[in-house]
Amino acid sequence: MLTYSFSQKGSLPMYDYLYRCIKNDILSNNLKSNEKLPSKRTLAKNLNISVITVENAYAQLLVEGYIYSIEKKGYYVSDIYKVNTDIISPNNKITEEKKENLSINYFADFQTNTISHENFPFTSWSKTIRSILSKKRESLLNTSPINGVSELRNEIARHLYHFRGMNISPEHIIIGAGTEYLYGLLIQLLGRENIFAVEDPGYSKISKIYQSNLVKCRFIELDKNGLSLSALKKSDANIIHISPSHHFPTGIVTPVKRRQELLKWAMISNRRYIIEDDYDCEFRFSGKPIPTIKSIDTDEKVIYINTFSKTLAPSFRISYMALPHRLMEKFNSELGFYSCTVSAIEQYTLAEFISSGFFEKHINRMRTFYRGVRNQIINEIKASSNYKKVKIEEENSGLHFLLNVKTKLTDKELIEKTKKKGIKISCLSKYYVKKENCRQRTLIVNYSGISKNKASEAAKRLMDCLD
Amino acid sequence: MLTYSFSQKGSLPMYDYLYRCIKNDILSNNLKSNEKLPSKRTLAKNLNISVITVENAYAQLLVEGYIYSIEKKGYYVSDIYKVNTDIISPNNKITEEKKENLSINYFADFQTNTISHENFPFTSWSKTIRSILSKKRESLLNTSPINGVSELRNEIARHLYHFRGMNISPEHIIIGAGTEYLYGLLIQLLGRENIFAVEDPGYSKISKIYQSNLVKCRFIELDKNGLSLSALKKSDANIIHISPSHHFPTGIVTPVKRRQELLKWAMISNRRYIIEDDYDCEFRFSGKPIPTIKSIDTDEKVIYINTFSKTLAPSFRISYMALPHRLMEKFNSELGFYSCTVSAIEQYTLAEFISSGFFEKHINRMRTFYRGVRNQIINEIKASSNYKKVKIEEENSGLHFLLNVKTKLTDKELIEKTKKKGIKISCLSKYYVKKENCRQRTLIVNYSGISKNKASEAAKRLMDCLD
Repeated sequence: MLTYSFSQKGSLPMYDYLYRCIKNDILSNNLKSNEKLPSKRTLAKNLNISVITVENAYAQLLVEGYIYSIEKKGYYVSDIYKVNTDIISPNNKITEEKKENLSINYFADFQTNTISHENFPFTSWSKTIRSILSKKRESLLNTSPINGVSELRNEIARHLYHFRGMNISPEHIIIGAGTEYLYGLLIQLLGRENIFAVEDPGYSKISKIYQSNLVKCRFIELDKNGLSLSALKKSDANIIHISPSHHFPTGIVTPVKRRQELLKWAMISNRRYIIEDDYDCEFRFSGKPIPTIKSIDTDEKVIYINTFSKTLAPSFRISYMALPHRLMEKFNSELGFYSCTVSAIEQYTLAEFISSGFFEKHINRMRTFYRGVRNQIINEIKASSNYKKVKIEEENSGLHFLLNVKTKLTDKELIEKTKKKGIKISCLSKYYVKKENCRQRTLIVNYSGISKNKASEAAKRLMDCLD
Repeated sequence: MLTYSFSQKGSLPMYDYLYRCIKNDILSNNLKSNEKLPSKRTLAKNLNISVITVENAYAQLLVEGYIYSIEKKGYYVSDIYKVNTDIISPNNKITEEKKENLSINYFADFQTNTISHENFPFTSWSKTIRSILSKKRESLLNTSPINGVSELRNEIARHLYHFRGMNISPEHIIIGAGTEYLYGLLIQLLGRENIFAVEDPGYSKISKIYQSNLVKCRFIELDKNGLSLSALKKSDANIIHISPSHHFPTGIVTPVKRRQELLKWAMISNRRYIIEDDYDCEFRFSGKPIPTIKSIDTDEKVIYINTFSKTLAPSFRISYMALPHRLMEKFNSELGFYSCTVSAIEQYTLAEFISSGFFEKHINRMRTFYRGVRNQIINEIKASSNYKKVKIEEENSGLHFLLNVKTKLTDKELIEKTKKKGIKISCLSKYYVKKENCRQRTLIVNYSGISKNKASEAAKRLMDCLD
């Protein structure tokens, strides 16, 4: 029988004190779940208090879910953590693909967009955070401006200037928690009546986000120079969302001529814009970088988007966009009520990380690292007796290249075979919406998450599948 | 005349080396902006290289914006930082109100939603980050699950359980970069055909976000118990967005009976839902906390939203919502492609900050602190010779209370007078959409950003305005 001393009750009402005592016993597991509580009358008698006091205490416990009642039987202790454990299975709809992946222990993953952990500059990042925490104090707690703290916008502008030869005003930069979030802002800024042209094949999240926001999308095919101009002109789209520096998944780098043509297309109507998604421009291994469309845009037609997901890690949710003057004004007047979605501490830390040179050093190191991994993989491919069956394409920039395979296997069979060798990889065909255009038998070798000591073996296993 | 030695050229093409030399001179300000460059022919002669080499170098500089050309005159150095400095004025549309606020140096601000800096636990936060950075390493770089890292969701569930008596499964929690971001997700999840009822008066951002996403809003008046049930029933809204624990700006705490009535309203149709915004529930100074609607919801009708903006600082962009089972399934299947918008480092840090007890300690300290500030202000009001002219309302929870004033002044005149005393404050009337319902002569005393040593003086100045 529950027994509590009321000597420590203090000024609390009797029922409240009793409620707390019982609650504590439930939380500390002294009262086990589904244990029956004494009847109100019995407990009142035992504690020498009124029945109404027990009734009030039970009522409070009931309303807060600590106990439950069964009619004509009495009160029982709730299984307070039950929901936490038995809810996972019915709730998390795990797709077939996910289920399968969970059960396979892959040796190497050429599919998932992770980044290599080996080289993350934990020491300098940690040093920078510490310095920020001790220096900035109050400013870390203040709401940052809608478009991000000026320190970070300045550093981004300087970085774009030195690294991409771009002349962007920090005042035109908007910082947000990931490019996905920025796409959402753009939809609100540009208006839902627009029709967006996206690349087919392409990064499927982009169209998913547009469609989830009930915005119309047109899937435009690519030719060897990127977005097909003739297909674009045939469509009714007025905004294009492209990644000309390095297209995912084809790896195409759009040449200057096509960039100019796209700009010309955009200049025809003031409802037309280009969203230039420059997501992995930092990793180019040879050849001269081609100026961004933004930097040759004289008519305020280009919205430039970039992210730190590739250069730092996807778990840092920091991306940014640079808006044309007109749109920046519209943003300030129509969406200025939003708060910036990136925490001030991370914004200041990243700003100092860039200004102190850590960022550039890190990118340079990663570029060397990735180039090394890529070379290992390509060398292994070339050394394979199956080399004559493949063609390597678009290997000079970004963190993936294509491997065109001469085989009678279907894409599905190809993937089945690689899976048996412990290799997770996907085919280009997976990324097409209009399947009739789709290129078969082309593997996407995404090596951003492959560690150096696994690269050669992973490539060897991949090539062995072609036996 | 520009002179460069080509001895360090290495394997670079001639034009590329020249391009880099000139670019460096521009960046290092050796070549001043608007300085004229030598003609191609002259420079070629001077450097003893071909004109075509200079032409190619100039072309690259031109396309990247380092130089510009004037027809028949030649090439000039761009003012590369110009955009950064002269763009601010035309670009940032500063509203009249903002302009005015910038020019006034207020003694105290009872209006802006800031939080007090005096008590932020920098030491324990910093300690926690350091521990996380050294312990977690790789997991900090991995993409976190869509709904946030499980460590943080577990801690939030535990916190809600102990602090609010709520039994929420961590699997039902979604972490996002601010409640504003979560509202956007909810719009996509629930669908744009819904009609949202928001409180009038209310926190204007909520309706702005709905409307910016082209979702219909109905402004529902309040009675003394919160959202008016009769007004709600007269409207065609099917989703209500309310803050029953402590309404902003009126401070109303919705009693259990009204909560049950609202639940009953929601249960009538499966298209009806309640969004319960519990933004400052942690700061209740007296009276027993009333169970959240979520915790008495037996029919999976309530979406619970809360934030760390009030308990930590608004600059931490971490909020969360708990979805009913049905909606969680829908979220996973329809919006599962999104990435979580909060950085992994901050999620892990907050999880450890909560689990190690720092968070609870901090809340308790802040509650005491805010109660102290509130008491100072109220004591000063009571001590004032103008006390008979005012009535204090809803002072027992949240971080603001109302001050009803008996005066012949209009709200505008009242604000004018406070401004002259260096006090920034707003009137309840400002927050009404339907102005015909609006309560006049009621000041909102938001003391969350008032420091202890200014509280009494600020209150004194406020009361002096009523002379």
